Amino acid sequence: MAKRVVIVGAVALGPKAACRIKRIAPSFDVVLLDKDDLISYGGCGIPYYIGGDVDNIEALRSTSAHVLRDSNYFQNVKGLEVRTRTEAIAIDRRNKKLKIRNLVDGREEQLDYDKLVLATGATPVVPPLPGIDLPGVSVISNLHHAKTIKDMVSKGQVERAVVIGGGAIGIEMAEALTDLWGVETTLIEMMDQLLPTALGKDMALPVKKHMEKNGIRVLLGERVNRILGDSVNGVQAVETSNSKIPCELVILSVGIRPGSTLASEAGLATGMYNGILVDKCLRTSDPDIYAGGDCVEIPHLVSGHNLPMPLGSLANRQGRVIGTNIAGGCEHFKGTVGTFCLKIFELGIARAGLTVKQASEAGFDPVHTVVVQADRAHFYPDMQLMYIKLIADRKTKKVLGIEAAGSHLDAVKSRVDAVAVLLGQGVGLEEITTMEVGYAPPFASAMDIINNAANSLDNIMEGYQVPIDVIDFLKEFKGNNGIVLDVRSPVQAGPFVEKYGRQWLNIDEGELKSRLAEIPQDKPLLLVCGSGPRSYEAQLLLRSQGINNDTKNVQGGIGMIMFSDPEFAPKDY
Amino acid sequence: MAKRVVIVGAVALGPKAACRIKRIAPSFDVVLLDKDDLISYGGCGIPYYIGGDVDNIEALRSTSAHVLRDSNYFQNVKGLEVRTRTEAIAIDRRNKKLKIRNLVDGREEQLDYDKLVLATGATPVVPPLPGIDLPGVSVISNLHHAKTIKDMVSKGQVERAVVIGGGAIGIEMAEALTDLWGVETTLIEMMDQLLPTALGKDMALPVKKHMEKNGIRVLLGERVNRILGDSVNGVQAVETSNSKIPCELVILSVGIRPGSTLASEAGLATGMYNGILVDKCLRTSDPDIYAGGDCVEIPHLVSGHNLPMPLGSLANRQGRVIGTNIAGGCEHFKGTVGTFCLKIFELGIARAGLTVKQASEAGFDPVHTVVVQADRAHFYPDMQLMYIKLIADRKTKKVLGIEAAGSHLDAVKSRVDAVAVLLGQGVGLEEITTMEVGYAPPFASAMDIINNAANSLDNIMEGYQVPIDVIDFLKEFKGNNGIVLDVRSPVQAGPFVEKYGRQWLNIDEGELKSRLAEIPQDKPLLLVCGSGPRSYEAQLLLRSQGINNDTKNVQGGIGMIMFSDPEFAPKDY
Repeated sequence: MAKRVVIVGAVALGPKAACRIKRIAPSFDVVLLDKDDLISYGGCGIPYYIGGDVDNIEALRSTSAHVLRDSNYFQNVKGLEVRTRTEAIAIDRRNKKLKIRNLVDGREEQLDYDKLVLATGATPVVPPLPGIDLPGVSVISNLHHAKTIKDMVSKGQVERAVVIGGGAIGIEMAEALTDLWGVETTLIEMMDQLLPTALGKDMALPVKKHMEKNGIRVLLGERVNRILGDSVNGVQAVETSNSKIPCELVILSVGIRPGSTLASEAGLATGMYNGILVDKCLRTSDPDIYAGGDCVEIPHLVSGHNLPMPLGSLANRQGRVIGTNIAGGCEHFKGTVGTFCLKIFELGIARAGLTVKQASEAGFDPVHTVVVQADRAHFYPDMQLMYIKLIADRKTKKVLGIEAAGSHLDAVKSRVDAVAVLLGQGVGLEEITTMEVGYAPPFASAMDIINNAANSLDNIMEGYQVPIDVIDFLKEFKGNNGIVLDVRSPVQAGPFVEKYGRQWLNIDEGELKSRLAEIPQDKPLLLVCGSGPRSYEAQLLLRSQGINNDTKNVQGGIGMIMFSDPEFAPKDY
Repeated sequence: MAKRVVIVGAVALGPKAACRIKRIAPSFDVVLLDKDDLISYGGCGIPYYIGGDVDNIEALRSTSAHVLRDSNYFQNVKGLEVRTRTEAIAIDRRNKKLKIRNLVDGREEQLDYDKLVLATGATPVVPPLPGIDLPGVSVISNLHHAKTIKDMVSKGQVERAVVIGGGAIGIEMAEALTDLWGVETTLIEMMDQLLPTALGKDMALPVKKHMEKNGIRVLLGERVNRILGDSVNGVQAVETSNSKIPCELVILSVGIRPGSTLASEAGLATGMYNGILVDKCLRTSDPDIYAGGDCVEIPHLVSGHNLPMPLGSLANRQGRVIGTNIAGGCEHFKGTVGTFCLKIFELGIARAGLTVKQASEAGFDPVHTVVVQADRAHFYPDMQLMYIKLIADRKTKKVLGIEAAGSHLDAVKSRVDAVAVLLGQGVGLEEITTMEVGYAPPFASAMDIINNAANSLDNIMEGYQVPIDVIDFLKEFKGNNGIVLDVRSPVQAGPFVEKYGRQWLNIDEGELKSRLAEIPQDKPLLLVCGSGPRSYEAQLLLRSQGINNDTKNVQGGIGMIMFSDPEFAPKDY
């Protein structure tokens, strides 16, 4: 019954699957191979190593008990055969042999396998720009890149850097360079928002503001034309459609491609993103070959479509599933909802499911709300505002996605995780209105923000609340389409009335009923309060009194406006 | 179609239901009545008011926009009729009339209703002890008690206090008295552990240690016999089965009873805990009468049994459901899994579902694991250890409960919430092994502790891991039943070998294979490492080599031992 298992790739999924096999089937022979000599590392830790939060690169290669996860460790402690600097060249599926090449001496040989695991990861996309090969231009996909970049910045060779790509890694790298090293950093993103695959534009706007506040220059909607410099002095500037940015370092983080060449050359099925296709057991189209991690496509459990989801967390979880299945057990990996979190200086971001744009593309009719609320009981001393966007399908009321931001990182993650684990089941909005998350004043409000977000969205779907989100509000207001009715107290609203004059009307909610005559009936009204609930009540009142039927309630109120566009506020506000 | 709704009780659920009705059915007449003159307050905030985190008691009665929620507010802004100091005496169900009494002038009258809502809350249990009526002995169930106690402590009248009852409120009150005011506080609990309905004994032991570390004397398994003092000088001491504790203040928090007298006298069905019985729409056995909050019993979604679950968070969520249903909509409240969290000085606790004891009582065959792991990536600077206990049914692998502790409060809550929202569905353990919670190094490990807890429990159920929990370990070790095999490095294990001598054997995991001959074969072996995974691998190795078939892996390893019993460690460890 003992089998020989060969595993190609030894970063995250490979070692996980290998060790799992050896634990439950100790008699199996397991060979783990990798092109690199540095294996089994926490690649997601690279920005923290470069930014100085992690002093020593070995920490990214060590267990939590501080044991270095090198070849010796996997051989001696885990009982694997490890071959580093070894490339898998071709799979002979008929004879179940893997052709490999030793990258040190060039020798080739054939390895027999009973089961093969492809953990071939992904390759960073390198756009074909003039100057892309200059010294000082680097992707950031392994520890060698990490070392090189940290060496450059720590030796003071980098005064100015350009990061190309406004996804998670680009943002983390921009922070790493700025925060510890004071490198003057510019982040360039081709799309008109940061994190375009993770957040809606309304939730991405505050991310940009927060990065700018922390000294990073953020250029959106700009395309890089070429990189300037020479082979002796290295990179000197990045030229975009609009500007030329001098720099000594360029980091490319514009995306990755599934590493599926070995698989596709062997005739294994791949998907529309070139990822290897796998079933629930994580078997490829050849039942003796498993695959997982960044090289595969998995089902998105909300949209139903396959896509790559290159996250270290999923790779590790898949590794155990593959290990169990090869060792004779039966476990499933159903798919992903794209749960994701990110620290950006003092701001925490988390999200899961589909954005509004992705939901529309997947054929849903997405409706969304944004709710702003204290993350603890509002009277608890260290409370901070949290910002949650919730998205559901108009027809089915199925929840499609959630996006959240706030300064208590774990608190942000906690709200998103609780919804994320339900998303794959096609959870209805009603389930979130009564969702039972923990409550005590140091942790949450009695009506948690997540319950209130669901309530707010339900109110929109039922037609009680007519919303406008912050992006549209800013557009309408600045375009002079409608005037604001601010139902906060005169003390709170006063500075806004002073700044915006006749476009900003203030009537305290408590006086609204007796001052209905003052409300303009012929113009669209944009209703605001501190965070949205009072202006929602004002909307209901105006409707029930037949005062103005063209009112919209600004989602998240002044809280969301200030979060997205701090300059909107009156001076010294 | 406009209806008249009368709501009895105006603390949490009552106002919530009333305002929801007025929002979606503005033409309805809604009467809100309460015995007290102080209404709509955050009762859960009382310990934080007494402990000084909340300066002003008005904060507990205000909205997040700092508007005081008094009768005027509910009348003017929300359009309710509010009657305070008014008691509901009897329900005439046939004629749909509620008899009420004004507590100021004693006048009685009848209120007509179309729909009646009972939000009559709960009554604190006052044990029939000698001295229970002495001045200085108080329950803590409303703002008047809160004011009285804060006055006493802030005026320096209390040097020593006794809190009777080791549930959440008792613990919060003990912290409040100690932390700001330096009151010498003793907490007495009749059972042999703190939080007996929330945690297992293993997870409750560290809570006791943490309270003791913060200066609170904790007496377990002691029964209070009487309270000593006189009506002039007030309370002077509490006498228990074992001791006499001098004090100037006694706080009673030994439980509450559903306030269901009005309902049961009107012939409404009540349950085995005397809570009012309600259906999914939160209707009582009379379809024109709704009830919710602390006065009802709701289904426990794991055990299937009805029980009271007196939490402000549930009351608020139920309030909206009742409001919607009365206003003509249709919403459901399915039940509870008892999700709960608590801050105890620097320690955060969260839990959901059933404890091992409760699971056994409900007819399950509970199996549990305890896992200790960093709450962020182990290399991330501010990581802290987190402690998670996961419980599942042996036969069905259905997850039954989770308990967690750690010093990053939100991080603890986040793991429990993510499991809690699945618990009511009868979620299988496999779902938790691949549960997709967010990951980035500042938030979690790639394999989150919650995934690893599920993996560990799965390994136990599959027979790979044979566990022993910390309570049993301490008993066995101290009873000299078995010796420890510590597979950490000699540097880590050395002090333990020195302290415990021949009962503590150390072989580094890396050398285990070559030193099998040193392992005793005739005695039970208790396997430990830092947190459990390495000693689990050692267990597998010993089994596969046929060395010793009586090994047990200490759940959570040294981490859990130190958390539960800091004195177990060698000096200066």
